[in-house]
Amino acid sequence: VRELELIEALERALRSPGPAVVRWLGDDASVVRGRGHAVTSVDTVVDGVHFRTGDLSYEDIGWRAVATALSDLAAMAAPAGEVYLALGLPAGMSLQDGLALVRGADAMCGCAGAVIAGGDVTASPVLTASVTVVGWVDDPGALVGRDGARAGDVVIVTGALGASGAGLALAQGSVTADAAGLDDGAAAALRERYARPAPRMAAGRALSELGATALLDVSDGLATDGRHLAGRSGVDLQLTLAALPLADGVANVAKALGREAKEFAATAGEDYELCACLSPASLELLEAEWAGLDGGRLPPVSVVGRVAVGSGELTFSDASSPLTGYEHSG
Amino acid sequence: VRELELIEALERALRSPGPAVVRWLGDDASVVRGRGHAVTSVDTVVDGVHFRTGDLSYEDIGWRAVATALSDLAAMAAPAGEVYLALGLPAGMSLQDGLALVRGADAMCGCAGAVIAGGDVTASPVLTASVTVVGWVDDPGALVGRDGARAGDVVIVTGALGASGAGLALAQGSVTADAAGLDDGAAAALRERYARPAPRMAAGRALSELGATALLDVSDGLATDGRHLAGRSGVDLQLTLAALPLADGVANVAKALGREAKEFAATAGEDYELCACLSPASLELLEAEWAGLDGGRLPPVSVVGRVAVGSGELTFSDASSPLTGYEHSG
Repeated sequence: VRELELIEALERALRSPGPAVVRWLGDDASVVRGRGHAVTSVDTVVDGVHFRTGDLSYEDIGWRAVATALSDLAAMAAPAGEVYLALGLPAGMSLQDGLALVRGADAMCGCAGAVIAGGDVTASPVLTASVTVVGWVDDPGALVGRDGARAGDVVIVTGALGASGAGLALAQGSVTADAAGLDDGAAAALRERYARPAPRMAAGRALSELGATALLDVSDGLATDGRHLAGRSGVDLQLTLAALPLADGVANVAKALGREAKEFAATAGEDYELCACLSPASLELLEAEWAGLDGGRLPPVSVVGRVAVGSGELTFSDASSPLTGYEHSG
Repeated sequence: VRELELIEALERALRSPGPAVVRWLGDDASVVRGRGHAVTSVDTVVDGVHFRTGDLSYEDIGWRAVATALSDLAAMAAPAGEVYLALGLPAGMSLQDGLALVRGADAMCGCAGAVIAGGDVTASPVLTASVTVVGWVDDPGALVGRDGARAGDVVIVTGALGASGAGLALAQGSVTADAAGLDDGAAAALRERYARPAPRMAAGRALSELGATALLDVSDGLATDGRHLAGRSGVDLQLTLAALPLADGVANVAKALGREAKEFAATAGEDYELCACLSPASLELLEAEWAGLDGGRLPPVSVVGRVAVGSGELTFSDASSPLTGYEHSG
C-alpha cells in the first residue's frame, strides 16, 4: 500500500475530529486546543509480538491498538481526547486492509469519546501500530498514579478477569469451544473480549472521585501489574486468588487447557480491567454509590486483597506457587 | 534487551524534564502542563526502510529519529516542547545500544529545547522508533501550514541542500572521499549532516513572524515536498534549479556519482531545511531583518522560485526532465 494513497483515503474516510482540533491530516502537524494538563501515553503493538494477523481482523487490530493505549488514560483517571496513529505497513498489505485497520481504530475512538487527530503511515517489514493518546484534565490532582497505595488500603478490580486470555486460546485454536463445553455464542463472546477490549474510561474517573490512592490497568495480568503497583507505591499487595472475579466461560477454557481457573485469570493478561487501591472509608463510599454512578453503566467491582507494609512484593495467600504474568509492551 | 530493564536504566540516565512535566516515566501516562494550542506530530523510522543500522551509530539513530519529528514542528513555526519515544527493539540488541539510542535522542532534544517526557519500549523483529513531538503555542494564528501560498509569492529555502544525500552516499560507500576529491574533514562534515540533522526550529518561527504564507520541511527532496505544498495550496511552484543553494562538497559527491549536482540536491532529501512562500513585501522585510534575528544565528535563505496560478504542479524551468524525490515516511 502506498502511503500517500492511504493518507488521502483516510482523509475521506475518517470522522471529522470536532472543533478542538484546528488542523489534522494533510499538514506537517496537528493543532489541538489545549486546556489544563495534557495526559499522554504511547503504546505500540507489533505483529507477531502483541498479536498475530491470523487471529484478528484488520478492524480488530486497529480497535485493539487504540483500546490498549486509551486504557493507560483510564488507568490515570483521565478522559480520552485525541489519538495519533503511526502505522508501519508491510509491502503486501492492501489499501483496503489499511483502511479497515483505521476504521477499527476510529470505531474504538468513537466508543471512548476520542478522535483521531493525526498520525503517520510508513513502510515496515512487519505490521506495527504505535498509538499516542492524549486526554485533558483541568485538575491534575484528580489523576491517580501507581504510587499512592498505603498500608491498610483494600485492593479492588473492575469487571471480570480471564476473558481475553480465554478468547485468545479459542482464537488461536489452543482449545475448541467443544472441548471447553461452550456453545457458539459463549465462545464468540470470549473471542470478542480478546479482539475488542473496552478500556474502562468511566470507571477510572469514578474511582478517582471516590478517592482511589493508586490505579493501573491490568494489561499483563494482575500478578504482574499488581507487582508494578506495589513497587511504585513501596508497599506489599496481599491478594486472594479465590476472590478474583472470573468472566463467564473462563473456568471452562482454563479446565480444557489443564489450568487452574483463578491462576489463569491472574496471569493471562489483556483484560484491560482496572486495579485500584482504596482506603476502607473510600471502599464504604464506593459500596454505597457505585451502582448509581455513570447512569448505572459501571462494571461491577470486586475486593481482591489488601495493602500491607512492605517493599514491593505481591503475594496470593492461596496460590500453590508464586504467580507471574507475562511482561507485555509496557 | 528486556523492556523493564531499559525503562529503569532510562529513568536513571535521562535529564529531568523540567517543571512543566508533572509525571513522566514509571506511570501509565505522562502529565504535562498545557497552554494555548498543542501542535503534535508523529514520525516513525524503521531499520532498513529509513536508515540502516550499519550506516549510523545508535546515538545517531536516536538523534536522527527525534530531529526528523521535530522538523515537522519547525515546519509549522511551532517551538519544541515534549518528545515521546516509542521504541521497538530487536531481541539481539543490547541494553547498552538501547541506552545509546536514547542518549542520542536526548541530546537532540537538548539542542532543540525539547524534553523527553515519556514513551514505550517493546520487542520488535526490526528496530523501530516512533517519535511523537508536541509544541505549545499561545496564538495558533502564528502557525504556518502548507496551504497558504498565493500566486505572486516567492519561494525560498533555508540553508543549503544535498548535504544529507551526499553524506549518505559516503556513509554507504557508494562513493569514497577520494573519488569525490574531498579531504577527510569535508567528508566527515557531510556524513555528520546525514547522521545528525538539525531541525530549523528558530528559522521556522522567524519565517512566521515575517509573514510566510506557506511552510514545510524538505524531508523527501524539494522536488517532492514542493509539490506537496503546491497541491495543498492549489497553486503551481515554478522553481529554478540554478538557484538552489548547494552545501559544500555536494557538487564533488554528485559528480563522482555521475549525477548533475543541482538535480541531486533537489531530489536527495533528508536535509530538513525549510521551504517557505512569502509575498514580495515579506521578502523585502526578510532581506532587511534576517541577519539580525535570533542573535545572527539563522541559516542563510535563498530565493529559488515563484508561485503561480495553477493546480498543484511543480516545475523546474531549467531541468532537463521532470524531477521527483522519493516518497518518504510522510
